[in-house]
Amino acid sequence: MKRSRSISPAVAILVAEALAFVVVLASLPGQTFAGKTSAFVRKDEKAVDMPLDSDVFRVPPGYNAPQQVHITQGDRDGLAVIVSWVTPDEPGSSLVLYGTSENDLILSANGKVEQYRYYNYTSGYIHHCAIRNLKYDTVYYYAVGVDQTLRKFWFTTPPEVGPDVPYTFGLIGDLGQSFDSNNTLTHYELNPRKGKTVLFVGDLSYADNYPNHDNVRWDTWGRFIERCAAYQPWIWTAGNHEIDFAPDIGETEPFKPYKHRFHVPYTASGSTAAFWYSIKRASAYIIVLSSYSAYGKYTPQFKWLEAELRK
Amino acid sequence: MKRSRSISPAVAILVAEALAFVVVLASLPGQTFAGKTSAFVRKDEKAVDMPLDSDVFRVPPGYNAPQQVHITQGDRDGLAVIVSWVTPDEPGSSLVLYGTSENDLILSANGKVEQYRYYNYTSGYIHHCAIRNLKYDTVYYYAVGVDQTLRKFWFTTPPEVGPDVPYTFGLIGDLGQSFDSNNTLTHYELNPRKGKTVLFVGDLSYADNYPNHDNVRWDTWGRFIERCAAYQPWIWTAGNHEIDFAPDIGETEPFKPYKHRFHVPYTASGSTAAFWYSIKRASAYIIVLSSYSAYGKYTPQFKWLEAELRK
Repeated sequence: MKRSRSISPAVAILVAEALAFVVVLASLPGQTFAGKTSAFVRKDEKAVDMPLDSDVFRVPPGYNAPQQVHITQGDRDGLAVIVSWVTPDEPGSSLVLYGTSENDLILSANGKVEQYRYYNYTSGYIHHCAIRNLKYDTVYYYAVGVDQTLRKFWFTTPPEVGPDVPYTFGLIGDLGQSFDSNNTLTHYELNPRKGKTVLFVGDLSYADNYPNHDNVRWDTWGRFIERCAAYQPWIWTAGNHEIDFAPDIGETEPFKPYKHRFHVPYTASGSTAAFWYSIKRASAYIIVLSSYSAYGKYTPQFKWLEAELRK
Repeated sequence: MKRSRSISPAVAILVAEALAFVVVLASLPGQTFAGKTSAFVRKDEKAVDMPLDSDVFRVPPGYNAPQQVHITQGDRDGLAVIVSWVTPDEPGSSLVLYGTSENDLILSANGKVEQYRYYNYTSGYIHHCAIRNLKYDTVYYYAVGVDQTLRKFWFTTPPEVGPDVPYTFGLIGDLGQSFDSNNTLTHYELNPRKGKTVLFVGDLSYADNYPNHDNVRWDTWGRFIERCAAYQPWIWTAGNHEIDFAPDIGETEPFKPYKHRFHVPYTASGSTAAFWYSIKRASAYIIVLSSYSAYGKYTPQFKWLEAELRK
């Protein structure tokens, strides 16, 4: 992501890198700039993870209450949203109720539920539901947990895609779930420039730092980010901490937890895998790539990018 | 593969490259050398594929007769062989009968049969059967097609693995199925140095040059190489022509035909995928890598190679 004052629309190419940071990037008519938003310098000490009983990891009350709610863009242009959440006790409903009036969610869409195992861990019931045909620049309210514990959230759709559309992205990477992670997220939330969408450049939960990649730490991370990610889309890129490759415990499918937990609209850009795709949002054209997938000449990712760059 | 006179045992690292060649490489006690074996220079004209009714593609006679018979090393040290073949009419038997006396195949092993679809093509019944606990430096006879059309072949196991064991490898890549391919294979077969095992460095059938990657050309290729590959192991490396990625016809799983047709002993070297693995054979330590799979830092292939190089 480089600073540039003359290019419009902005094109962002996201590839995960091993740096912890948060940046707010404002896209204004005719110019793009990524200002220095704080004098923050990382501490020398190793970050300490928040304990399991931390406030930020709290399980929402109520029978089978949806948790780890997060949204991402669900199509190429910003008129769809993928809503994802986890129910812990039983599958429950995959319905999303939504609408523009908070107390009258007159629309609904039905998603799918999945589960995965990782070594001795079995995930909760992971729901993904795309809601489509939204209107630009509109506040939508939505609810999940139908017929059991209903929880309500909201988001704002972006303005229509165009070369001169102001919009503000946040850039977060390598978040993890340490006390510093909490500071980072708070710093983003309180930034006066008010980021409207997060470009997440990889390395999400750092669950792989735990023995047997304890996937409980994927759940705590999902609950930690909900306070932001349920209300604005986070655009996902896979980093090396998403690989979760652990042949010693029989886990040899790269990206297994990530793939089940974070759906992205890759087919909308003609991609054949969730790790490389593109979206348009306001004045930004965002290309997500994966340095941990095959990218050599002739590979699917290479061929997709070749076609993409011609667009 | 570089020429070297002082390293023993030989270590060969195979990665597919886009060059057509055949080399015979002799491994002698205390030295390894790859001599220039002919004054051959490739013609300028584009190679023309042999027509479907060519002799070399002939279907063996008899009901459900095994075709496309080929063998490869089946373990780490050369005491096992994977026998692969295709039956066209019905699954038939996956048994391999074998033994050291041509007319008395007193041993047997049972394999597995699989099939795959690729666009509008459905493969024959592809059998893979590992025969194990062989003796070094021994001629074995084997037969497939039990209870229907029995076909017999033979191979010689390598000498025991050791630093000073003479052995001769052939090196073939980018073979295809043109008239020139036939010359190349004949050239290898007639070479007075008598290669005992082929290190195949990728780009097998070039079926992907045909409309819809016509997989019938994978079958013709299997029949073409049988005259050699049924009698000595071919050690497989995947090249870009094995990717067979064709999203326009819905074929998005890389290496689909290759993976079904060519099994390799990747688990024996702790690998988790067929595209990177290692074997020992006589005085050679052979490492097969895939430039068309992910190889970035932290990827399965990277981590496997890291561990491998420590061995």
